[in-house]
Amino acid sequence: MKKFPIVKSRRLRSTPYTDRIEAHGVSSYTVYNHMLLPASFKSLESDYHHLKEFVQVWDVAAERQVEITGKDSAKLVQLMTCRDLSKSKIGRCYYSPLVDQEGLLVNDPIINKLAEDRWWISIADSDVIFFAKGIASGNKFEVEIKEPNVNILAVQGPLAENLMAKLFGEEIRDLKFFNFKYFNYKEHKYFIARSGWSKQGGFEVYVEDDIAGQDLYDYLFEFGKEFNIRPGCPNLIERIESALLSYGNDFDNRDNPFEANFDKFVNLDSDVNFLGKEKLKKIQQDGITRKLMGVKIDSNKIDMYCEKTLFDDKNNIVGYVRSATYSPTFKKVIGIAMINKPYWNSKDQFKIDIDERIFVGTVCDLPFI
Amino acid sequence: MKKFPIVKSRRLRSTPYTDRIEAHGVSSYTVYNHMLLPASFKSLESDYHHLKEFVQVWDVAAERQVEITGKDSAKLVQLMTCRDLSKSKIGRCYYSPLVDQEGLLVNDPIINKLAEDRWWISIADSDVIFFAKGIASGNKFEVEIKEPNVNILAVQGPLAENLMAKLFGEEIRDLKFFNFKYFNYKEHKYFIARSGWSKQGGFEVYVEDDIAGQDLYDYLFEFGKEFNIRPGCPNLIERIESALLSYGNDFDNRDNPFEANFDKFVNLDSDVNFLGKEKLKKIQQDGITRKLMGVKIDSNKIDMYCEKTLFDDKNNIVGYVRSATYSPTFKKVIGIAMINKPYWNSKDQFKIDIDERIFVGTVCDLPFI
Repeated sequence: MKKFPIVKSRRLRSTPYTDRIEAHGVSSYTVYNHMLLPASFKSLESDYHHLKEFVQVWDVAAERQVEITGKDSAKLVQLMTCRDLSKSKIGRCYYSPLVDQEGLLVNDPIINKLAEDRWWISIADSDVIFFAKGIASGNKFEVEIKEPNVNILAVQGPLAENLMAKLFGEEIRDLKFFNFKYFNYKEHKYFIARSGWSKQGGFEVYVEDDIAGQDLYDYLFEFGKEFNIRPGCPNLIERIESALLSYGNDFDNRDNPFEANFDKFVNLDSDVNFLGKEKLKKIQQDGITRKLMGVKIDSNKIDMYCEKTLFDDKNNIVGYVRSATYSPTFKKVIGIAMINKPYWNSKDQFKIDIDERIFVGTVCDLPFI
Repeated sequence: MKKFPIVKSRRLRSTPYTDRIEAHGVSSYTVYNHMLLPASFKSLESDYHHLKEFVQVWDVAAERQVEITGKDSAKLVQLMTCRDLSKSKIGRCYYSPLVDQEGLLVNDPIINKLAEDRWWISIADSDVIFFAKGIASGNKFEVEIKEPNVNILAVQGPLAENLMAKLFGEEIRDLKFFNFKYFNYKEHKYFIARSGWSKQGGFEVYVEDDIAGQDLYDYLFEFGKEFNIRPGCPNLIERIESALLSYGNDFDNRDNPFEANFDKFVNLDSDVNFLGKEKLKKIQQDGITRKLMGVKIDSNKIDMYCEKTLFDDKNNIVGYVRSATYSPTFKKVIGIAMINKPYWNSKDQFKIDIDERIFVGTVCDLPFI
């Protein structure tokens, strides 16, 4: 696939770390929430192997926050997600599909509860701020909605905890998964969550002060030498192997949460009020006719820039692959695909056209095993 | 400025024309509404000179449509914009700033009125669909809101009308600016507006069928040979010289419509109901303290990837340049900047740091003369 340079502009915002990651050898970008997000450094495979063994610092400022504060903030946040947040606790992170009045997905953010009346919705790639503003206006909610200047640095990989303990002290080891707390280093205070867009363990630092973030970036590399630290970014191979879904790639506003396997985050039996609740009840009752599953394809290469159709022997449509990559672990192409119901339990093979050659593959459950 | 390749994925959607523009030599991309938008072909300057003399075909599928239909559609559309649409007519296009409940800008689309209860909001780079869905849900409007499969081809340049008349017949010459109508060519029907993101004249074809669009792309190049047709795209130099504003570059959700010079589209005296109306009245009463103006800088080069600060002699802040480019016409860098009130009438020079050298410039009115 031919490569094309991206033209930077204010509209595709740089981050406080852009100068640093470019000095550190970022080799490609994607755009996420109108912001530059690094897509590779040495190479996808080299970054992947390193991430699974050592520790990386990621510029994920593109994970923007929608801050919702005020008297009706809890009501507004609940209205946006099908996950029951009525028992949510301050200091916790909640992975929460956002759903519209049609029961269709809008985003799959982490919702951070900072106070009973203060929330940060840490979003995937869609403008949740306008969804929130629209709902708030129609309901005449007393809330303030804004995008604060928060630019996340993620520290990911099996050695992340050791590195973070060197900077922030041993107590950071006690921070539980999907919990957050403030920690100090030198003159700065940092909001740190145990979370991140990999399954290799690690932390996300929600940086509220650009200088504090740039300092932290430099400290991490200084202290990280002994852990073989490298710059990195959400890695396509690792995230597909780990079945971490991506809004816009694997699902979008044409899909409902059941189709995206979010069943355990759809709390229809609770008495909380959220958009699309009645639609989702009906969808659950009728049953879905397609859902996201894994696929393994006997190929060593695939370029994805739109969904690709899967066919059975009789040329009936099996489904559509939406994300895929060569996996060095499975020694095949693996991908995430929307699969039609007749093929959910199929051990049959499907056919797929990659660069005008036909390859065969099989459907499998997620996560890949 | 070092160039970085963009990594394609389903999330940064290709268009029905991507294969064609890549065969035709697209040389860089930007991302707009989660979709690939070409940013240059031969070079920014070569494309610019050609656009001002001949005719170009542009893949501007990234100008997505938000379709709003149903009983309350007119009410919803009006609620989203500060422009009075109460006397709007079917077959017309309305440039309409969208404003939230704080009186801040959300987008600056063209609103196409297809019927009393059917509208296409042809958007700039933000997810207006979620703003519309949010407002509709809160107000319990009876509307359907979706993104239809419409992929615009623009035909721009002084020879655009001659070319279009060859395909669609002489009657297309009678189509007035910001009017649209259906026209036929061979077996397909095309929604065509006299509009486009340049001041060189031309049309936008709202293609509703991918095959019809690909056919049209090929026909245009076949018939365009005699007009020296080339592929093109919204051109940074031409659009800044023409003072065509860009959401995300020149203004965003932190700015109000008065600051962006949209005064004539803010109809506070009409009795229509829209978000932020009271806030805008207050802003008008208090007066604004900054607004978008032109700047001319004595330099032959500028790379923009975030706003750049302008200083006066005493190092007070004059304002911030948000878009800029070298203009072969003015033989200087020209740009669009948010300028603080004390400098609106200033003939004084300002200073700006470009690549660690200090340059001088002056503030001017828009459009540039």
